[in-house]
Amino acid sequence: MKSLHMDLTSYCEQLARNAKAASRRLAIVNGDRKNRWLLAAAQALETRTPEILAANAQDIARAPEFQLSAAMVDRLRLDPERIRGMAQGLREIAALPDPIGNVLGSNVRPNGLKVLKVGVPLGVIFFIYESRPNVTVDAAGLCVKSGNAIILRGGKEAIHSNQKLHQILADGLEAVDLPRDAVQLVSTTDRDAVGKLLHLNQWIDLAIPRGGESLIRRVAQDARMPVLKHYLGNCHVYVDRAADLDMALAILINAKCQRPGVCNAAESLLVHREIASAFLPRAGVALVEHKVELRGCPRTREQIPQAKAATDADYAAEFADLILSIKVVDNLDEAIEHIATFGSQHTEAIITNDLSAAQKFTTAVDSAAVMVNASTRFNDGFEFGLGAEIGISTDKFHARGPCGLQELCSYKYIAIGDGQIRGA
Amino acid sequence: MKSLHMDLTSYCEQLARNAKAASRRLAIVNGDRKNRWLLAAAQALETRTPEILAANAQDIARAPEFQLSAAMVDRLRLDPERIRGMAQGLREIAALPDPIGNVLGSNVRPNGLKVLKVGVPLGVIFFIYESRPNVTVDAAGLCVKSGNAIILRGGKEAIHSNQKLHQILADGLEAVDLPRDAVQLVSTTDRDAVGKLLHLNQWIDLAIPRGGESLIRRVAQDARMPVLKHYLGNCHVYVDRAADLDMALAILINAKCQRPGVCNAAESLLVHREIASAFLPRAGVALVEHKVELRGCPRTREQIPQAKAATDADYAAEFADLILSIKVVDNLDEAIEHIATFGSQHTEAIITNDLSAAQKFTTAVDSAAVMVNASTRFNDGFEFGLGAEIGISTDKFHARGPCGLQELCSYKYIAIGDGQIRGA
Repeated sequence: MKSLHMDLTSYCEQLARNAKAASRRLAIVNGDRKNRWLLAAAQALETRTPEILAANAQDIARAPEFQLSAAMVDRLRLDPERIRGMAQGLREIAALPDPIGNVLGSNVRPNGLKVLKVGVPLGVIFFIYESRPNVTVDAAGLCVKSGNAIILRGGKEAIHSNQKLHQILADGLEAVDLPRDAVQLVSTTDRDAVGKLLHLNQWIDLAIPRGGESLIRRVAQDARMPVLKHYLGNCHVYVDRAADLDMALAILINAKCQRPGVCNAAESLLVHREIASAFLPRAGVALVEHKVELRGCPRTREQIPQAKAATDADYAAEFADLILSIKVVDNLDEAIEHIATFGSQHTEAIITNDLSAAQKFTTAVDSAAVMVNASTRFNDGFEFGLGAEIGISTDKFHARGPCGLQELCSYKYIAIGDGQIRGA
Repeated sequence: MKSLHMDLTSYCEQLARNAKAASRRLAIVNGDRKNRWLLAAAQALETRTPEILAANAQDIARAPEFQLSAAMVDRLRLDPERIRGMAQGLREIAALPDPIGNVLGSNVRPNGLKVLKVGVPLGVIFFIYESRPNVTVDAAGLCVKSGNAIILRGGKEAIHSNQKLHQILADGLEAVDLPRDAVQLVSTTDRDAVGKLLHLNQWIDLAIPRGGESLIRRVAQDARMPVLKHYLGNCHVYVDRAADLDMALAILINAKCQRPGVCNAAESLLVHREIASAFLPRAGVALVEHKVELRGCPRTREQIPQAKAATDADYAAEFADLILSIKVVDNLDEAIEHIATFGSQHTEAIITNDLSAAQKFTTAVDSAAVMVNASTRFNDGFEFGLGAEIGISTDKFHARGPCGLQELCSYKYIAIGDGQIRGA
């Protein structure tokens, strides 16, 4: 061995190479073998709960060393019920249809050539995430079911939990004769390992970062392979002049308050000026009751005296907290323009009974999901009926919105002939 | 003005900014306006043929200055028939269905929320290409029809032709009240403009390079936005032991010789050892008759004495010429492994009457298109029944194979409710 630097380089290359070899084997197995693994792994998680809890206890014991907040420690902590939840997640993935080999489109040509477009795996996915250990299990389940090998890189604060979960998942792969390297965990907490792996685009096909904005920006900047991501969820609720104000209030409170820390929670309220005096005082009372801090434009503050003055930074922010920016707009066009300027292309909602306003809003707003008379909180794989997801993309490449099994796949064309040759 | 450097930076930023503004307007227009432009532009190309020919003559006159070969001058040269061909291409694009707003999938949730997945434009496309001026017209037609603004950067050898074609296309946009900046041409031949534009990922959503491998590698390396591309078309024909040898020969000759310079032409022949002595001598005679230079493994050269010895570099090469590498393989697995090692994931064909061999080949070979008993030459938008294309992608992000109107789009989710809020 030459140096630690060389060792880390070799280690990362070996991980990536092994993942690529595993992905080639995984690409050609039938769905039932992948499902057998999912079900056996679910069972093993439950059976080996004491081992998992012991490993998790080591992480919890070290939490003060990493200065984790009480909320972060809570996210990190496992208990038998949370482990049953992970197992249940794998069983739900097993129950989903297999995306590999699925015919997505077909076409019989005049010369008799039968052209099929079929689902194929992406290959090797490098998944970089923070904190919650259940993500380890979810991500591995989704990737293997979609025929992809995964390299997991969790946070240092969860390393013992993740190592134990990885061991259980990998043992299960061997038990059903799937390649153990289909699920690998980066065993070092050296930060340089991430940078090195992000350069190995000859073996790794996609990077998926899940965590804070700074993590995602760093991955997007360093990666030599495509990255599936969303930076921010600065989601808007626009209350149009033709809104049912009771409905608007219920949706606003749900979108802002039901789970303020998640990416599809509302961060900004836009109100048509013609209903501002009817809606904003009511909304102000309800929001303050829900302990929401309000930051508004001058016209907002005329209606809600408690609101502080909003800055452009407030309009651009994902608070991920009980804070809401508010702006009164002259018309629908101004609302659309405000969203184009300050939004993050994640999720926006219009509350209106005006069909043409709804159509204009859904056409002109360029976000992954646009809601009409429904809460922004519905932009979610399960809520859209798509099943478990590995994240919500605000990119247009290659997938947008909730990314589940389908979005972890590409496709190939298969053309079946009986001797066709091309004339011109 | 401060310096030339600053001017170029400002110029590129202005192009990109204008394109983004145009793309936002273009995203919300109905299909008939885009079709009116396509048909009017087709007409204008025919009406203004003398202007186009005059501009083209300037490029032809300067061809010696750029040391263009006779073949390259021929590709550059326009005549009334070629201009009619361009016009016809636009009319064909007009006749294709509009991909924007098209419902790609839908789902009604138990709570009554109606979830639609609808086609949307990508935004702004930066298209970098070499030589043939007809590509200017094709690319602009495809991008505008799919709701995208395009920034065209053609080769310096075609600048006058491209400027005139661009002028005609942009005049037409104004005439139907579409934004003129939906189609822009980089008016300087300064090479630095490409690098600068490739950094403007805040306005440009996708780069598409079309040309030689070095151009494509440079674009892929410098671009801060996603790149749709293929580096190489090193396509294989595998003649299985269960092949109909007459069919195999016809497909091989078609794949190699019908148009050897294109990306879906065959570059390498793999032959199962059990039929090598029956097939290779016949294939050798036919290929030599077609003036193909042969480079084979030792077992090939036993059957075809004229073949030179092949190197690994030959097996990895896209000759784009009348040269073929040949290898005798022990079995199907070796053929699949050889393709995984040396192929470019573009197009491969198996010739066989063995169903399980065909299934294994189509599953295990990870290429954009896999043919069974048909020529590799069919991997093409028109031949697959998909219509005109802007290129053939060997990437899995975001599109693979022929990239036409559908592949120039992304999607968004639109969820229509009547007051739904989320419970948990």
